[in-house]
Amino acid sequence: MKDFTVSILGNGSAVPTAFQNPSSQLVKYKGLRFLVDCGEGTQMQFIKYGFSYRNLSHIFISHMHGDHYLGLAGLVSTFHLFRREAPLHIYGPSPLESILQQQFQISETHLQFELIFHPLKGDQQLYEDDYLQILSFPLKHSVPTWGFRFQEKSDTDRRLKKEFVEEFKPKIEQMRKIKQGADYITPGGNVLKNKEITADGHPPRSFAYCSDTIYDESIVAHIKGVDLLYHEATFGNATEEKAKDKMHATAAQAANIAKMADVKRLLLGHFSARFSKNLKHLLVEAQDIFPRSMISEQGKTYEL
Amino acid sequence: MKDFTVSILGNGSAVPTAFQNPSSQLVKYKGLRFLVDCGEGTQMQFIKYGFSYRNLSHIFISHMHGDHYLGLAGLVSTFHLFRREAPLHIYGPSPLESILQQQFQISETHLQFELIFHPLKGDQQLYEDDYLQILSFPLKHSVPTWGFRFQEKSDTDRRLKKEFVEEFKPKIEQMRKIKQGADYITPGGNVLKNKEITADGHPPRSFAYCSDTIYDESIVAHIKGVDLLYHEATFGNATEEKAKDKMHATAAQAANIAKMADVKRLLLGHFSARFSKNLKHLLVEAQDIFPRSMISEQGKTYEL
Repeated sequence: MKDFTVSILGNGSAVPTAFQNPSSQLVKYKGLRFLVDCGEGTQMQFIKYGFSYRNLSHIFISHMHGDHYLGLAGLVSTFHLFRREAPLHIYGPSPLESILQQQFQISETHLQFELIFHPLKGDQQLYEDDYLQILSFPLKHSVPTWGFRFQEKSDTDRRLKKEFVEEFKPKIEQMRKIKQGADYITPGGNVLKNKEITADGHPPRSFAYCSDTIYDESIVAHIKGVDLLYHEATFGNATEEKAKDKMHATAAQAANIAKMADVKRLLLGHFSARFSKNLKHLLVEAQDIFPRSMISEQGKTYEL
Repeated sequence: MKDFTVSILGNGSAVPTAFQNPSSQLVKYKGLRFLVDCGEGTQMQFIKYGFSYRNLSHIFISHMHGDHYLGLAGLVSTFHLFRREAPLHIYGPSPLESILQQQFQISETHLQFELIFHPLKGDQQLYEDDYLQILSFPLKHSVPTWGFRFQEKSDTDRRLKKEFVEEFKPKIEQMRKIKQGADYITPGGNVLKNKEITADGHPPRSFAYCSDTIYDESIVAHIKGVDLLYHEATFGNATEEKAKDKMHATAAQAANIAKMADVKRLLLGHFSARFSKNLKHLLVEAQDIFPRSMISEQGKTYEL
């Protein structure tokens, strides 16, 4: 649905190509905007694809390889130049905080908004509101790395029945209350019970991001049953040894994880520059194991 | 001429737009490649415009504002991943060295080539070979900032006369020696004196880069008579007060400096995001004072 989406800003790996930028994703949920990773050039990717970065509230950085964080200092500096006032939460490996602080100190950038840094540690709940939880869990890579799960809570809003809305044309504020369980009093004074005018909400939706990681079955428990899994697929079957050596995964390995975790759809990304535009074989290798695999596309938005 | 060129990779300022990337320029001189500033996304700009970054030998960073250096860690990391072996010289403000080292340490990037860091100090000769000198000089900006002058030496090669080349078809190695003053012995054993078969070389050429800087007449001595001056023009006449306040210059001020320094051509750049694609008035304001002013264009190469 349109109120929970993932947009791909960069699906490349360490060396950018004409077709792949370093890692970054925009996750939108009911008007909130979260950024997952922020490789070099992320702010330009926002502009290129026409997404707004002004009201990002929380940024999650998976690990301290440059292709996942080198765009962050520039983006935060742009927020500063746009006179941002809203606080910004950044979740990342602890060394990230001192690197950012050092860069702002040297450039004499005195942020006028609050930057709240949260160091990542083991498995954690990073964020929670009435509808959504965001969780982190460790991945196995050459430096400390975390995956993230965006999990809608099970007590989602009820859905208004179409006939009721058409007949009574309730106001927005009334609709909000009814979605949360309130009854409705008609202009004539009759009470319509919530159960009569609403249906059950959709099942809770979820998205998980796993990049970068070696093939690691221990992550399955953390990503079990998600609607959409983004899993790195830096290499292919022919370069499986290289994947292991570099602590990355192949498309087929990502598909195996997706199958074991019983996810709905798999989005492959973090492609090696050697493949550039020739990604078809990665898709074939993944679909051979898990048919609901897709190649992530930069600029494209995936609905949950 | 084609053996001394300046290519614009980014001519924007602190906030990138759809039309302007952060500062960066590729200077080529007789097969050598130098980079001047390296804002975020510079390596992607190389790819976009089809320039090669593999054999860059020297990188000059003017100052520690993010839009002039945030692309450097990513570019150096790409050199590392491409298994570069040649040494790389980086000239920049002294804090740059520790920021780079910290980033490589945290990402466990152990460079396999030599990175030689040269801290900028006052006016200096940074580089010299048989043909070229590169000089630095201080600019006035909100943090320590340097300008650069690429100066061809006066003892340039002699030019081979066309008639001689057509008649005798000398080999490349012979031509190189003749350009440097050697006589030529014909297959029949006659000595042709160098003066008979060559003409004087061109006058020594020069390029200067001044970004970022407030209007500052004290730089005139350093850029006197250059063939091409790139001078920042962040603002226009209507925002002259803002320029002064932010320690930047207007297009008209850049033109005044160009006029005082008696340069051949002025290239305006480092445009404020507020102008985006509407740069015409900056050109008009500059040409009113110095007619040989031009708006720099990203992806374009200027010959000296």
